[in-house]
Amino acid sequence: MAGPLISFLSDFGSGSTPAVCRGVMWCIAPDARLLDLTHDVRRYAIRDGAFLLSRAVGYLSVGVHVAVVDPGVGTARRPVVVRAARGDLLVGPDNGLLIPAAGELGGATGAWEITNRAFWLPRVSSTFHGRDIFSPVAAHLAGGIDPARVGEAVEAASLVDLRLPEATARAGGLDSAVLMIDRYGNVRLAGQPADLAAVAGPLTPGRPFRVSVGERRETVTWQATFGEVQPGVALLYEDADYAGLGIAVNQGSAAVRLELDIDTPVRIEPA
Amino acid sequence: MAGPLISFLSDFGSGSTPAVCRGVMWCIAPDARLLDLTHDVRRYAIRDGAFLLSRAVGYLSVGVHVAVVDPGVGTARRPVVVRAARGDLLVGPDNGLLIPAAGELGGATGAWEITNRAFWLPRVSSTFHGRDIFSPVAAHLAGGIDPARVGEAVEAASLVDLRLPEATARAGGLDSAVLMIDRYGNVRLAGQPADLAAVAGPLTPGRPFRVSVGERRETVTWQATFGEVQPGVALLYEDADYAGLGIAVNQGSAAVRLELDIDTPVRIEPA
Amino acid sequence: MAGPLISFLSDFGSGSTPAVCRGVMWCIAPDARLLDLTHDVRRYAIRDGAFLLSRAVGYLSVGVHVAVVDPGVGTARRPVVVRAARGDLLVGPDNGLLIPAAGELGGATGAWEITNRAFWLPRVSSTFHGRDIFSPVAAHLAGGIDPARVGEAVEAASLVDLRLPEATARAGGLDSAVLMIDRYGNVRLAGQPADLAAVAGPLTPGRPFRVSVGERRETVTWQATFGEVQPGVALLYEDADYAGLGIAVNQGSAAVRLELDIDTPVRIEPA
Repeated sequence: MAGPLISFLSDFGSGSTPAVCRGVMWCIAPDARLLDLTHDVRRYAIRDGAFLLSRAVGYLSVGVHVAVVDPGVGTARRPVVVRAARGDLLVGPDNGLLIPAAGELGGATGAWEITNRAFWLPRVSSTFHGRDIFSPVAAHLAGGIDPARVGEAVEAASLVDLRLPEATARAGGLDSAVLMIDRYGNVRLAGQPADLAAVAGPLTPGRPFRVSVGERRETVTWQATFGEVQPGVALLYEDADYAGLGIAVNQGSAAVRLELDIDTPVRIEPA
Repeated sequence: MAGPLISFLSDFGSGSTPAVCRGVMWCIAPDARLLDLTHDVRRYAIRDGAFLLSRAVGYLSVGVHVAVVDPGVGTARRPVVVRAARGDLLVGPDNGLLIPAAGELGGATGAWEITNRAFWLPRVSSTFHGRDIFSPVAAHLAGGIDPARVGEAVEAASLVDLRLPEATARAGGLDSAVLMIDRYGNVRLAGQPADLAAVAGPLTPGRPFRVSVGERRETVTWQATFGEVQPGVALLYEDADYAGLGIAVNQGSAAVRLELDIDTPVRIEPA
Repeated sequence: MAGPLISFLSDFGSGSTPAVCRGVMWCIAPDARLLDLTHDVRRYAIRDGAFLLSRAVGYLSVGVHVAVVDPGVGTARRPVVVRAARGDLLVGPDNGLLIPAAGELGGATGAWEITNRAFWLPRVSSTFHGRDIFSPVAAHLAGGIDPARVGEAVEAASLVDLRLPEATARAGGLDSAVLMIDRYGNVRLAGQPADLAAVAGPLTPGRPFRVSVGERRETVTWQATFGEVQPGVALLYEDADYAGLGIAVNQGSAAVRLELDIDTPVRIEPA
């Protein structure tokens, strides 16, 4: 019979740090199935981590999800466990990282501050709570302990939340903004294709749109897929990886080409 | 008892995309042993992916092998399952990626176009068939469904094939070409050491050869291993990683030094 | 019941090479739990690999630990299995890589030269002992064979050892040196915070120290955590990842800022 699932996301990079955390988890829950989501979140980029986690959890089976993007490690921010309506348990710092994912899983139905040292490593450092607190607590939860044992209950409403930019229709176009940039420079924008269609009409392949970024104006066509335009040409499309509106350059970087960064406002109108 | 093996190769890079695919597989086949071959194939480089997959599968136990290097995603290319003589099932786009690996496993003994949506995720995007089609189909196959259930049989001979360059003996030397370049700039050439020995005689350590790349001529010695030459010095050797003739620079890049790219012709003669 | 643990560290990078080794292990020990520690050790950097392995093994359960950083592959260096007092088996080249880890696990209590080809792959290349010798031997050991079957016993005292720099107190300060540099440029120095406190008194947050690197002098404060200083500011701290004295720059690289490399001497005195 398959063991419990523990997924794991961090900004720890490609060194041995995530592996040491997995080693700690397997000491406590040797039959757990460990799924590294990514450790390449840009360092301390809570927003990127929160977005990536929220897009991934819906594709995973019910389990324990550990996320550590924690610029405040060693300061007063709380370590927490958050229970989602689907039955998942989210483990990490109370800095907003976990909340969009909890929302995707039906919303938070309980939360506990992690204070019971019985479930931590015996020696806890000031800078590596991923290994010393979050990993062992996650493994104990995967092994079946009641989350109420990790510490006192806290109000879910008291957890730090994050605002992700949203798209709004205005004067025949869509005011959007950059949600996320992947390693190829493909950009995920706020809003769904349906939001754009609602103000601009059908998104037929090849239809031109005007994209405005600050003073810059560019005409970009809607396409079903990258391969429909020549290399180096920009396109608007449905970003399947992250389920929403995307802008990309075939075999190039839209982030570089259009000078886009996280939260950069982007307006899209029929051309 | 150990679960079924699913290996996975793609050009998805180091973000969370491969992990989401693994999450989908584990929803369907929770006891599968998941083996990431690599996700660092250069983007859209079908040839590199086909070569790497073909060199790896012989070292794996019989299983399901998913490969996604798919510049044509969302266009008319067919998604397929290919059965190899050894008993393995290969899953991916019909663009040539799978065929050299099928050859290494004894040749294709059956093929099916993936059309039965019963084994896909309920919602299929136009740009992420790795997650929505190939991963769930692979997991269902690992769980034991008959491959004939994924869709109608197609002739193995109708599958897109790829030509990898081959080495040919001519006028006392070997006409070869670049098959693959690894991240260190070590270059795998077409042909086996035995092919060079057949035209040039014994490959004794330290024996000099003339390597011609376009107008460039360079004298390079045959060596058993990198450590036999000084740092910065080129060598010809048996490339054990990819089982064939290799050219490298000790602690340097042969690709940069000799201006080699995929398919660049390289002639080797006794000096 | 959970299978045996095999951890794996190398300088093979992010290509398919480590995966092929894992594939070989799973052919022989299909129920093994495979834990990749890291494959991003700088190529041929035995010292970095030895340090990373030694810092990780204490967080893992008892198992087989394979490490391959092997500039001498194909030359006369011995492949070995080393048994540690805790019960772990370390597998790799006899070049010093394994010995600091064995020390962390209670010291070497036995060693064997790997000579019995019955536990190797049938065909052994001259340049890829990781796949052809170390991986299959590790998997057979994980499966339960007696380590004495891999080859003749050798004296543990005859194994190649490595010197890691140590910190020494002198004239009111601590003479240390660089042990390890992580991918962010955070630097792990020889010695523990207690060693510095012994010569300099209490390490209170904000206390200034003078750091000397060659002719360079810089005043750096002791801090509990990165977030206590502004971005771009250096700090001395307890490096939790690698359990010791560290120097870093908040959101920057201490290695670049202070021109530090492996073994660079660093003196720390009260300012």
